[in-house]
Amino acid sequence: MQRSDQDEQGHTMAKEKPQTTAQDPSLALLAATNSPADLKKLPVERLPELAGEIRQAICDQVSQTGGHLAPNLGVVELTIALHYVFDFGHDRLLFDVGHQCYPHKLLTGRGKLLHKLRQRDGMAGFPEPRESDYDLFSVGHAGTSISTAVGMARGDTLTGQGDRRVVSLIGDASIVNGVAMEGLNNAGTLERQFLTVLNDNGMSIARPQGAMAGYFDRVRLSHHYDDFKKRAHEVLKRVPLGSALEELYHRAGEVMKAAINAGHMFEQFGLLCVGPIDGHDLPGLIEMLEEIKDFDRPVLLHCKTIKGKGFDFATGDPTTFHSPKPFVVSGCRVELKSSGRSFTSAFADALTDVMERDEKVCAVTAAMPDGTGLNKILPKFPERGIDTGICESHAMDMCAGMAKSGLKPFFAVYSTFVQRALDQVFQEVALQGLPIRLCLDRAGYVGGDGAVHHGFMDIAIFAPLPGVVMLAASDEPNLQAGLEFMRTYDDACSVIRYPRDNVVDQPLQASATPFELGKANLVRPAKGKKPDMAILAYGVMVYEATQAIDRLVEDGYDIALYDARFAKPVDADLIERLISDGTPVLTIEEHALSGGFGAQVVAACAERQVSADQVHRMAMPDRWVYQDSRANQLAEAGLDANSIAQRVRGLLDQKISPPIKIHVGVGTVKKAAK
Amino acid sequence: MQRSDQDEQGHTMAKEKPQTTAQDPSLALLAATNSPADLKKLPVERLPELAGEIRQAICDQVSQTGGHLAPNLGVVELTIALHYVFDFGHDRLLFDVGHQCYPHKLLTGRGKLLHKLRQRDGMAGFPEPRESDYDLFSVGHAGTSISTAVGMARGDTLTGQGDRRVVSLIGDASIVNGVAMEGLNNAGTLERQFLTVLNDNGMSIARPQGAMAGYFDRVRLSHHYDDFKKRAHEVLKRVPLGSALEELYHRAGEVMKAAINAGHMFEQFGLLCVGPIDGHDLPGLIEMLEEIKDFDRPVLLHCKTIKGKGFDFATGDPTTFHSPKPFVVSGCRVELKSSGRSFTSAFADALTDVMERDEKVCAVTAAMPDGTGLNKILPKFPERGIDTGICESHAMDMCAGMAKSGLKPFFAVYSTFVQRALDQVFQEVALQGLPIRLCLDRAGYVGGDGAVHHGFMDIAIFAPLPGVVMLAASDEPNLQAGLEFMRTYDDACSVIRYPRDNVVDQPLQASATPFELGKANLVRPAKGKKPDMAILAYGVMVYEATQAIDRLVEDGYDIALYDARFAKPVDADLIERLISDGTPVLTIEEHALSGGFGAQVVAACAERQVSADQVHRMAMPDRWVYQDSRANQLAEAGLDANSIAQRVRGLLDQKISPPIKIHVGVGTVKKAAK
Repeated sequence: MQRSDQDEQGHTMAKEKPQTTAQDPSLALLAATNSPADLKKLPVERLPELAGEIRQAICDQVSQTGGHLAPNLGVVELTIALHYVFDFGHDRLLFDVGHQCYPHKLLTGRGKLLHKLRQRDGMAGFPEPRESDYDLFSVGHAGTSISTAVGMARGDTLTGQGDRRVVSLIGDASIVNGVAMEGLNNAGTLERQFLTVLNDNGMSIARPQGAMAGYFDRVRLSHHYDDFKKRAHEVLKRVPLGSALEELYHRAGEVMKAAINAGHMFEQFGLLCVGPIDGHDLPGLIEMLEEIKDFDRPVLLHCKTIKGKGFDFATGDPTTFHSPKPFVVSGCRVELKSSGRSFTSAFADALTDVMERDEKVCAVTAAMPDGTGLNKILPKFPERGIDTGICESHAMDMCAGMAKSGLKPFFAVYSTFVQRALDQVFQEVALQGLPIRLCLDRAGYVGGDGAVHHGFMDIAIFAPLPGVVMLAASDEPNLQAGLEFMRTYDDACSVIRYPRDNVVDQPLQASATPFELGKANLVRPAKGKKPDMAILAYGVMVYEATQAIDRLVEDGYDIALYDARFAKPVDADLIERLISDGTPVLTIEEHALSGGFGAQVVAACAERQVSADQVHRMAMPDRWVYQDSRANQLAEAGLDANSIAQRVRGLLDQKISPPIKIHVGVGTVKKAAK
Repeated sequence: MQRSDQDEQGHTMAKEKPQTTAQDPSLALLAATNSPADLKKLPVERLPELAGEIRQAICDQVSQTGGHLAPNLGVVELTIALHYVFDFGHDRLLFDVGHQCYPHKLLTGRGKLLHKLRQRDGMAGFPEPRESDYDLFSVGHAGTSISTAVGMARGDTLTGQGDRRVVSLIGDASIVNGVAMEGLNNAGTLERQFLTVLNDNGMSIARPQGAMAGYFDRVRLSHHYDDFKKRAHEVLKRVPLGSALEELYHRAGEVMKAAINAGHMFEQFGLLCVGPIDGHDLPGLIEMLEEIKDFDRPVLLHCKTIKGKGFDFATGDPTTFHSPKPFVVSGCRVELKSSGRSFTSAFADALTDVMERDEKVCAVTAAMPDGTGLNKILPKFPERGIDTGICESHAMDMCAGMAKSGLKPFFAVYSTFVQRALDQVFQEVALQGLPIRLCLDRAGYVGGDGAVHHGFMDIAIFAPLPGVVMLAASDEPNLQAGLEFMRTYDDACSVIRYPRDNVVDQPLQASATPFELGKANLVRPAKGKKPDMAILAYGVMVYEATQAIDRLVEDGYDIALYDARFAKPVDADLIERLISDGTPVLTIEEHALSGGFGAQVVAACAERQVSADQVHRMAMPDRWVYQDSRANQLAEAGLDANSIAQRVRGLLDQKISPPIKIHVGVGTVKKAAK
């Protein structure tokens, strides 16, 4: 099946234009800055020039391979200032989400990996300890940096490494995530150095959501660094007498004292709050960080930045980017313009259709309107389309409440991010029997985003929940039919999954038959009455299997192909019939073996007391798969058409009776002796 | 195996002393109040008397059957006032955690169920929609009420039911949970009536944790309702001019206006904050609620209450309780004093031993020092023992940071609550390969707490994570040996599970052999060289199996029993050997079939290409199991010794070749034609 340009072409282009940074004479300063030690040798006056080169290097690269542009452009000065003041070979730097780590990587010796950004053996798009000791945690999900930082602060202190300073860098959209707020609440109890840098660009991934976004807006409008300097005395008067804050205040240095914000909302979390200050003013940042770096209590430094600083999204100056390829800005990312139609787009159109026909249907996203396609829906249905911000747990419970009121919420969320809401699906959804509809985008391998974003365990985590129904969409007609099934399925929670990929141009069946609970769909019958094998493919694996069968047919094999459609309940009648006919069954899924579709098929065999000996399973291997094109990841996992064809041949060409054939049935066991 | 008194005796006692409430003449007012309609007929002056009777009824019952005492005693007046002012047949009342619902249940026609509190067919210990339409959600996990309330508020408005008022009742320990803070942040954006009642008793389940607990302390000390009344004018001056708050303020009535707290921390979440007011002053509460109930914007009403109001924990007046049974107050619960030694106690002692021998080991709990046994450890190791408060997500990430610093954190957490931290185990733990140690108490059926607390999916949710090692403890020696294995296992995350039950007095092996990665332990050999069956039991199922085998042996069967010890990796060598010897295998586990121990055994067979046809699985059924004694729940699930013996007989007495025997191997398939 065809895939988006982004993966395939990005991979090809890397060979055409290697080592951008080193070769471009306009990036000489960056090329000479291969470590924080190099950086520290530069005078402050030259740092803005370095910032400019970092921006150019990132823009050049992202325009060619896609990636996160705006988040990285926004933190260039912050990153330079942090590395200039701290020593992160010794001190601890923790990124939240991590999509803003490119400048950090360029400053820690990884410029040479940039030309293969988000590709195999190239620079990962997120922090990656396998690349460098400067990266402490592989991250990609939001809100975790403060909590891991609290752990490192506690750990370093307990292990006699208390001189290692701890810094976390987090955005305004992430800091209101539940985990981050739990982290802040606990950070406030630390009695040691602990710096949280709030990168407040007021943009979130899409638009900021929730009441606190309004708070940040007010703070941005009402405070300026210059103002602070002028009115240190006035600020001092606002510090409550006798408070812990007052005690901290009097220990602060002059620069810091001038910027202390006694009315900051996070002061209630026990943090000394400073700012907001200008996050692009390098000398100002360095001066502040120098003074703050050894402060012996938790401090939150609020920095105002401009997301995408240096790149005008509105006019999109192409000459800056030397880009031969068309690209689109999608939320905070740049996506190379795809030649195909994505599942995400197909979903958006299908859900729009559902919403037009059924006024009870609502659409919900947790800060991913672009990634889930809901950007097409929210403006069209302002009442029934809701973006909650980055808070999957809240969003799931909100959906539960809406369902309890009689609505039909469809929550569009990445498979990997729904992990944040497992407990809510357990308690507020499944235990209540509420018919929430979960639409899991990015199920399976995700390409360049790598291991932090693969959707590999959604079936495993939801299948143990009584009543939950699980579907997969193999193509656009089946996605439409699946959503229509979910619209009318009111008995319990239903979950559909689909990958970060394009839909096929030519579906096996131009219009899908309606989904029937627990029924598979025969999409490519065998030629004879008794096929050599039946393949039950889950989701898009149908099309990998189709390609495999094309080859197998040439070799004379006769294979029946089913679109399994349901992982819970599986089509037990079909499975029993196939086995009773002596037809070997091969299940294929883009999900972990443990608890996946194939596991449900085997369980169904056990329940029906039919042998599962001729049920074979292909699934994602039990190891991490890193950034690469999705096609390569599928091949690496043994889930591409080639691997499938090879496996089928292997099973059919040799007698696949198990190496140890069991002839000793328990029927030979003596009867009870009594 | 023996179980704690609590379940068994509670069940027995119910028959001895039925219908407490109705029969006790001192509870006449309560007996006559069978619905909110009855309540509304009472004059306000009689409500304190009713409150007294509710307290007495609850104390009487809990002293006999165990249950949550303090949380319920603290909200008696609040509950009466809410039902007096609102109409929750139409309006929406959402409980957070839900362990404070007994007064609500008594006021909504469920007095007759109280004598069987937390027992089958009796009153569930948590809100339960199956009991009454007055209960909207079955809950038991903290922090969800505000988010579900936001959903219902949105849903009711969208479906034309906007006149249904929405109220959530949440404690000060829960409101700082991440989900609750996400909910508050989104609640602040609603433009309709939305009341959050903060029940602030300053006690949490154990002691409150985190910086915000300090905030609540300061608020409690610095504000009094009477003060507010006196200084309404002063408060007004503090409201920022031109703010949304100012606009709301001017629409508030006089009683409410007098108590508006413009400096309240949750004001930043966009809520109009009122109080704190006295949560035991019935006339004051009713006056305030009357005024607040139709306010058309989100309001947080901060009420100060005394947890356990009316019962002096220190002196523990036994005459008040007419209790013939000894009981202990454990955190916020009353537990009948057990005659045996619980896994929780055994764990606390074993971990203490580990911590004494290894100074890198730390112990972490998320607000459950009593429930996990860490109350014995925290005072002994003030540096290395940490209670984070109710925030499993943060606690897991903190552990990850501590491990990154070189420590060995052991996080003791209920199996059901670790679901809150799945995404953290994925990203911050497993993906990093960090050796966090998870100790899952309450794995399996939990007795009286019912469906909201069973630990039934921990294996399923962690098994798909590469590298994670999963153990179970069958008895105290094995729990000790398991923890020692985990102490020295630094390669990856390890997880051990054990149930809410007593350890056996007489372990099968007085001292356990050391755990070896992925190796099962033969605990009861067969008599002959070729047993009729091998049972691989996971965790305490070893002892149910032992009892079953005792009976089977009498009937002449010869069964080998293995303590499986590991669910990941399973003992594939053993399994292959058993199957190659023609010995049928039965796996038994107290976990869902999907993704559980048996599923890992079947997967291991597939990997080794040995037939799994003679692998049989016993596991928890795919349906909800409600409150009852743990023994009854195991029997209902078919996981008690009787059921096991019956299943083994069924498998061995009939020829268990599958109904449809497969003789047609794929070996008959033609070779490729080319």
